[in-house]
Amino acid sequence: MMTAELFPIEPWHVRETAFEMGLIAETESLFALSNGHIGMRGNLEEGEPHGLPGTYLNGFYETRPLPYAESGFSYPEDGQSVVDVTNGKVMRLLVDDEPFDVRYGQLHEHERVLDMRAGTLNRLVRWMSPAGKQVLIRSTRLVSLAQRSVAAIEYRVQAIDQFARVTVQSELVANEDQPERSGDPRVAAVLRDPLVAVHHETTERGAVLLHRTRESGLMLAAAMDHEVDVPGRVEVGAEAREDVARTTVICGLRAGQELRIVKYIAYGWSSLRSRPALRDQVAGAIAGARYTGWQGLLDAQRKFLDEFWDSADVEVEGDPECQQAVRFGLFHVLQASARAEQRAIPGKGLTGTGYDGHAFWDTEGFVLPVLTYTAPKAAADALRWRASTLDLARERAAELDLEGAAFPWRTIHGEECSAYWPAGTAAWHVNADIAMAFERYRVVTGDDSLEAECGLAVLVETARLWCSLGHYDRHGVWHLDGVTGPDEYTALVRDNVFTNLMAMHNLRTAAEACERHPEKADELGVTPQEIAGWRKAADAANIPYDEDLGVHEQCAGFTTMREWNFTDNTSYPLLMHEPYVRLYPSQVIKQADLVLAMHWRSHAFTPEQMARNLDYYERRTTRDSSLSACTQAVMCAAVGHLELAHEYTYEAAMIDLRDLHHNTEDGLHMASLAGAWTALVAGFGGLRDDEGVLDLDPQLPSGIHRLRFRLRWRGFRLTVDANHENVTYTLRDGPDAKLTIRHAGTPLEVSTTSPSTVAVRPRTALLPPPQQPPGREPIRRSALQ
Amino acid sequence: MMTAELFPIEPWHVRETAFEMGLIAETESLFALSNGHIGMRGNLEEGEPHGLPGTYLNGFYETRPLPYAESGFSYPEDGQSVVDVTNGKVMRLLVDDEPFDVRYGQLHEHERVLDMRAGTLNRLVRWMSPAGKQVLIRSTRLVSLAQRSVAAIEYRVQAIDQFARVTVQSELVANEDQPERSGDPRVAAVLRDPLVAVHHETTERGAVLLHRTRESGLMLAAAMDHEVDVPGRVEVGAEAREDVARTTVICGLRAGQELRIVKYIAYGWSSLRSRPALRDQVAGAIAGARYTGWQGLLDAQRKFLDEFWDSADVEVEGDPECQQAVRFGLFHVLQASARAEQRAIPGKGLTGTGYDGHAFWDTEGFVLPVLTYTAPKAAADALRWRASTLDLARERAAELDLEGAAFPWRTIHGEECSAYWPAGTAAWHVNADIAMAFERYRVVTGDDSLEAECGLAVLVETARLWCSLGHYDRHGVWHLDGVTGPDEYTALVRDNVFTNLMAMHNLRTAAEACERHPEKADELGVTPQEIAGWRKAADAANIPYDEDLGVHEQCAGFTTMREWNFTDNTSYPLLMHEPYVRLYPSQVIKQADLVLAMHWRSHAFTPEQMARNLDYYERRTTRDSSLSACTQAVMCAAVGHLELAHEYTYEAAMIDLRDLHHNTEDGLHMASLAGAWTALVAGFGGLRDDEGVLDLDPQLPSGIHRLRFRLRWRGFRLTVDANHENVTYTLRDGPDAKLTIRHAGTPLEVSTTSPSTVAVRPRTALLPPPQQPPGREPIRRSALQ
Repeated sequence: MMTAELFPIEPWHVRETAFEMGLIAETESLFALSNGHIGMRGNLEEGEPHGLPGTYLNGFYETRPLPYAESGFSYPEDGQSVVDVTNGKVMRLLVDDEPFDVRYGQLHEHERVLDMRAGTLNRLVRWMSPAGKQVLIRSTRLVSLAQRSVAAIEYRVQAIDQFARVTVQSELVANEDQPERSGDPRVAAVLRDPLVAVHHETTERGAVLLHRTRESGLMLAAAMDHEVDVPGRVEVGAEAREDVARTTVICGLRAGQELRIVKYIAYGWSSLRSRPALRDQVAGAIAGARYTGWQGLLDAQRKFLDEFWDSADVEVEGDPECQQAVRFGLFHVLQASARAEQRAIPGKGLTGTGYDGHAFWDTEGFVLPVLTYTAPKAAADALRWRASTLDLARERAAELDLEGAAFPWRTIHGEECSAYWPAGTAAWHVNADIAMAFERYRVVTGDDSLEAECGLAVLVETARLWCSLGHYDRHGVWHLDGVTGPDEYTALVRDNVFTNLMAMHNLRTAAEACERHPEKADELGVTPQEIAGWRKAADAANIPYDEDLGVHEQCAGFTTMREWNFTDNTSYPLLMHEPYVRLYPSQVIKQADLVLAMHWRSHAFTPEQMARNLDYYERRTTRDSSLSACTQAVMCAAVGHLELAHEYTYEAAMIDLRDLHHNTEDGLHMASLAGAWTALVAGFGGLRDDEGVLDLDPQLPSGIHRLRFRLRWRGFRLTVDANHENVTYTLRDGPDAKLTIRHAGTPLEVSTTSPSTVAVRPRTALLPPPQQPPGREPIRRSALQ
Repeated sequence: MMTAELFPIEPWHVRETAFEMGLIAETESLFALSNGHIGMRGNLEEGEPHGLPGTYLNGFYETRPLPYAESGFSYPEDGQSVVDVTNGKVMRLLVDDEPFDVRYGQLHEHERVLDMRAGTLNRLVRWMSPAGKQVLIRSTRLVSLAQRSVAAIEYRVQAIDQFARVTVQSELVANEDQPERSGDPRVAAVLRDPLVAVHHETTERGAVLLHRTRESGLMLAAAMDHEVDVPGRVEVGAEAREDVARTTVICGLRAGQELRIVKYIAYGWSSLRSRPALRDQVAGAIAGARYTGWQGLLDAQRKFLDEFWDSADVEVEGDPECQQAVRFGLFHVLQASARAEQRAIPGKGLTGTGYDGHAFWDTEGFVLPVLTYTAPKAAADALRWRASTLDLARERAAELDLEGAAFPWRTIHGEECSAYWPAGTAAWHVNADIAMAFERYRVVTGDDSLEAECGLAVLVETARLWCSLGHYDRHGVWHLDGVTGPDEYTALVRDNVFTNLMAMHNLRTAAEACERHPEKADELGVTPQEIAGWRKAADAANIPYDEDLGVHEQCAGFTTMREWNFTDNTSYPLLMHEPYVRLYPSQVIKQADLVLAMHWRSHAFTPEQMARNLDYYERRTTRDSSLSACTQAVMCAAVGHLELAHEYTYEAAMIDLRDLHHNTEDGLHMASLAGAWTALVAGFGGLRDDEGVLDLDPQLPSGIHRLRFRLRWRGFRLTVDANHENVTYTLRDGPDAKLTIRHAGTPLEVSTTSPSTVAVRPRTALLPPPQQPPGREPIRRSALQ
């Protein structure tokens, strides 16, 4: 159990106060370090015990055949799986002749701290060997946000009470043994020893290993070098073989003396570059890191994070757990994206092998909204990655006999890797989610250049996709049939409201973007007739509404489908206990779908519709997806159920810090972690931007007495500081001294000269708080404390 | 090309006049012999060349894991594949020292004849060896309809013009090499060498081999023995090893002298019985066959078939191809079922490995209607097989959180083996198809005992399934959501008309059956309330109808879905060229669905609705399934498009004789072969029974001037003899001297004392003949002649 005792609540740190073997895999995920290019799970330096050993490079994957007992046309043949690359974290320690291992001897103290301002993972161990020798081990680890190819570890060993001979074996290890994760022997075979040795060499105090994957044809270089600092005599030797390189440091320490080693690690990979080029690339990165030095890396790390927090931090007074959790979420979202530089942001970041390391709609739908307001450069790079896969998406659309581009439901490199099309290919909304992310980036940053550079082509090709997917019935109504919306418990439906609203937005946004960039649109072959067709389809799209009940139908006919029997089916997640053939035709919802539409396309609903819709869908939503709670938080806040919103916020925020979905071991849930920010800022802050205006409308639940958050808007930095009575807007920087925002639905001019304080608009709920399905009430904060 | 020159049209034979290497696999299917227990493809005696070597035992299969790239709850984990068992057909011939092989030497004559009255496959070969020795080889092969475990071959070799030393090696061969059929290496691995040797022994002139499967745990025994007849000295030796047993016959033949060998082959298999028991079982079967003798086996074969044809034959004057084809179809349907004795009737019978040897709804939907009227004992046995799997179907329903029983979409042994649930599990109609087959058997035979024995439980449990699948909306309308009807290009829909009508019938039939067998119903826990619930649901079921167009909707909303672009998509079958994600939400139909509903539940439609519905759906039906043409024939005839009906009849009838679907090599299409009978008898004969009455209404197309068919009805044998003007009903046997049928909608009393001749009711088409999608017009008879 991840209790508050073991993991005390602190505003800027995640601290584990004792080593808990049963949580080893979970803490490896929590303590993962990444810069978006390199990801290192929080494995112990000594290599074992481990839950899941993991070092990942963004975009580095192996392909494997996707098996089908009954195949079908256009089913993807190859999957892509993230690969555990050469592990540079390993630093084995021998005290006299006994290996340090937390499972042997006596562990007098074991603490690990993730420092979210320093960007480091710190470890402190007091250990007595089985022979009675006591040592103090302190390590600090970082994956550099400033030097993209570099990670480093400061490793210190001190003899406490008597002389000890100390040996440190610092290693690069390729093809680490992995725990068995898949029942499919072919998958396991591919991912066992995925790396073929290409080259190995030693340097004076380090080594370089080069490997390549068998099928995907990617080459990888890993290098290490060391600085050693110790009083007295020390011997340092280096050796390298195909799958392991080792630098051995031996010295004697008298009581109180310390051995300090700084290990510099560098990674590079390429699908194109030659063996010498890659080798030199990592050697150069090592040289750069040594030139900067350990303290220089630490300083640059803090500087990078100081700048981030200055325009990203969220302060939550009254709820220390949410305070910690929202920073934890922001920190990991930044880690997943900061230096990804035109690579994907996977659903689990670079913190584990969950979802095979694939990126989903989570990126554009849940992670990029946060980054767009807090780290827009990272958001732009993620969008550039998506745009770089446009040709693959065009090919996929052509394969499916469609116009335009069809982006993949799940992928690493850009090809569709989803082997279950009803919840993959048919979830076309991913295309509109991508389009929305481009448009939000433009609206929020005020920067048209990304649209000109690559966004326009994405908007045009996705609009074309929608036009060829949709059709007019003989009454002139435009339908999208056979689609799957966000709710994966209902699939292949007519006119999913979320999908139709998003497609309408995609079509209209593409039309407007073409008018902003007429020459580029012309190059893409867009004609005025085509643009008119997009607008006509958007205007004619069907939005199913049940007049009897006064609620929108999640899809056509939804509200007359069978009600799910929530009384007898109480094993969650339902998908592990009930077949799709039963779930699909029932009014049972995996995750916010219609409710998400009310968040993302808020202006399409009246306040009364929102209240009734929320009430209707809350009762039928199981929240079996980690993407749901944050959206429910936002919309519960919007309709005035502030206490319920607070519970959902807590659930979204604590998903990994308390392992609520029991799979934190596979990696962190980036979208839900981003969702903690969204729940606070869009929920209690009332942030909306779907009308192109910065719309704020704070109101706090009783348990939070002050919420202060920062965001970027068109070159400005804005701080929003709300309590139960009023809200203060403080504007910094910016192209002009003034900015017009909307507060509580009314235009408000704020200025860099002085803060503006206005009264909060009280929200009155039109309906009582809704019930959830039995057993699916949000996790009460009190229950976990 | 299977031309009429190579395969001349003859009423009672299928003759191949020359050996055509390019058609070897197709002819192996056409010339397959079976009694429903043993199936032997028409492989050459000398073993090679071959297309697909095949000997099958009904119910004998191997299990293999079904792979899923993305698995889901309740997905079947194990598949079942029919196994090529020990081959007893092999008789290798050496002339002097040269092996007889049609690919070497000179083939002066090569003829094979399937004799559908004798029940034999005859072969005549005149061959000159590379060394110039000429021999005449004549073989006759049968799989005994009278002695279920026995097959036999008479093999004769004659020296034509000079002395020859002749050696015949007659063999049993296990684990024959198979051509690579699957891209999945694991499947290939399972089906390569599927048999593990258990025991082998020789007898004086024969041998016994015992094998078992690795996974499914079934044991198999094969035995052979020989009679040898030759002038002069002959040596006969027998040997046996694990996977091969050989009896060698050597003799010298002067010009004109003949060696005659009769080979008796016996098979047995069991999941329970011991090795000695199985060995003795086949030894006993061999002894029985030898006791009967070759001529005795031939006589019994003809007697069995004479009796069958006497109440099954269809005579088609004016269309010799359909004449041949309908007999070919009846013959193979009988072969697939005659002695199956509580085993399944697979989709391909025992003629090949197509569909893994699985049985589908084809059995109850297409094959049993024919057998019920022509070989009711075989129909009853097939229904008993289905009922014997009821417990497995109950388990499957429970796994799916449903009441009652859910029969598998595809299986050999009874477990669900369909790995694609949208066109497997969701095709619930298979349950109602089974129920209908039980009810038809009762209605047609007048025999309630099968219902009492096992049918009632099936009816009750399937009715329970429907009740738990369906639901009432808040307006009191009963829906079946998320179902897939016969048309596999549209799936997971609301209220498929076919499925709803069939479910209604299932519910009402179960209610009536319970009232017929109140005590047994009570044992099954049926209460009056439950019966009332079945009737209420049937009465409240939704039958979608488009008032604007005046047609039924195949499913709710079907007529407002996107029209398929038939102009640009002209590669058929579409499923090989278009993804399901595009096919499902379009008005494109794989096979008769609503049109099949109009055949099987004819009284639910007015003549005007039938005419309009047929017109609407014909234009959208691709006939990409072999199950479609026969139904289109029946309904085109019903609405008066007699010439079009004739084209469809031809297409259904010729599917294998002209390899119209290009997969006859994998085995024959039992349902389509049965469909030839259905097209003629239900189409031009107008046979219906869905109101519990024998309803006939013949009318012939211009190309058929006389149609005479025989059928059994409640102990009577009835001959219907129709021409363009009138129809004569001749009644034989029967419990009474009189029977009331319906002719052209009007009651007609027919009597065993004298035939009744009445005028044909002319059918006037309300609409002009409909167009099919471009390129999907029925195969014109003229095109293939």
